[in-house]
Amino acid sequence: MSTGLTVYGMKASGNCYKLQLLLEHLQRPYRWVEVDSVNGQTRTPDFLAKNPNGKVPLLELDDGRLLPESNAILCYLADGTRYLPADAWQRAQVLQWLFFEQYSHEPYIAVARFVARWLPADHPRQAELPRLRERGHQALAVMEQALSRREFLAETGYSIADIALYAYTHESHVGGIALDDYPGIRAWLARVEAQPGFVPQTY
Amino acid sequence: MSTGLTVYGMKASGNCYKLQLLLEHLQRPYRWVEVDSVNGQTRTPDFLAKNPNGKVPLLELDDGRLLPESNAILCYLADGTRYLPADAWQRAQVLQWLFFEQYSHEPYIAVARFVARWLPADHPRQAELPRLRERGHQALAVMEQALSRREFLAETGYSIADIALYAYTHESHVGGIALDDYPGIRAWLARVEAQPGFVPQTY
Repeated sequence: MSTGLTVYGMKASGNCYKLQLLLEHLQRPYRWVEVDSVNGQTRTPDFLAKNPNGKVPLLELDDGRLLPESNAILCYLADGTRYLPADAWQRAQVLQWLFFEQYSHEPYIAVARFVARWLPADHPRQAELPRLRERGHQALAVMEQALSRREFLAETGYSIADIALYAYTHESHVGGIALDDYPGIRAWLARVEAQPGFVPQTY
Repeated sequence: MSTGLTVYGMKASGNCYKLQLLLEHLQRPYRWVEVDSVNGQTRTPDFLAKNPNGKVPLLELDDGRLLPESNAILCYLADGTRYLPADAWQRAQVLQWLFFEQYSHEPYIAVARFVARWLPADHPRQAELPRLRERGHQALAVMEQALSRREFLAETGYSIADIALYAYTHESHVGGIALDDYPGIRAWLARVEAQPGFVPQTY
């Protein structure tokens, strides 16, 4: 059986970059189909037929099976590898960081980056930035507490928890969220970047 | 070894109710410690020492190990049971609904319920309701598309995906989000309520 994987993604999206990073670590070949979600390409009838929630990334297997949600895709691809522990408790510790990322981190740090970088300076959503930054700092403080005590987010070492949280944390400054007060996070970013197969995000 | 589990939770929270529902299905004994997050009890030094993100639910094992994030706790408790498939692909399908719930559903349907039910009628956050309801309906439309074609969210049958999404969907109306246009969802709610061990949310 072929192991041909297709990723529908947008290079500028941290959620999509997560998959690129894991696939490079795993040295798994894949096809990347660029989908411009900012300009409506995730809202076409063709794309909605593949993902009714209208979001990238989306993984397609060579038999046509589809999987949305960046962190669910990370879990699927990492299953049975060193990037996701097999033990139920250890896996749950990785999962808690994945849920933290989507609920307490991405909605602030990724959205601040989007508003500051992609919306015009006079756009009404610029008014959201102070609250986004405040909440973003709250998320970073939670990460700092963990990363001041250990090398990676999960005690078992580098995992998809680090990949998921690296994706937007390394561009916090783009949204006006400085990492000056988080020495643990800055050292961790460097450790992630030193992993075999690491690729920087380009867009 | 004892299997004593402690859940720190708030009965009125759907995220906490998820755990109650699964634990009842599994017939696992547990101790419930009520923590009033609306009135600051998740922000005390004692609680923050247990969960630096200051949220319930939080699971504590009898040896003191701690796990936050409702959906990570569901995964841990359901591991090896009929409520979470062992196969990597099938498990990923359950996980994608768990991430959908935390990113595209809960921030609208749960927050609309909170604003409408708990905040005073003249509170400034009441102004958020139209947008919360619009986004809530978008999430329900995604669920309806799945549930008009099969009995439960994952193809493998009733799972923690259904438990996680039942938690706030069954109270959508409290936030002013009616289920009239979602016959698939309404039939699914009844199927969830017919599962062995089902307990209604009380608060």
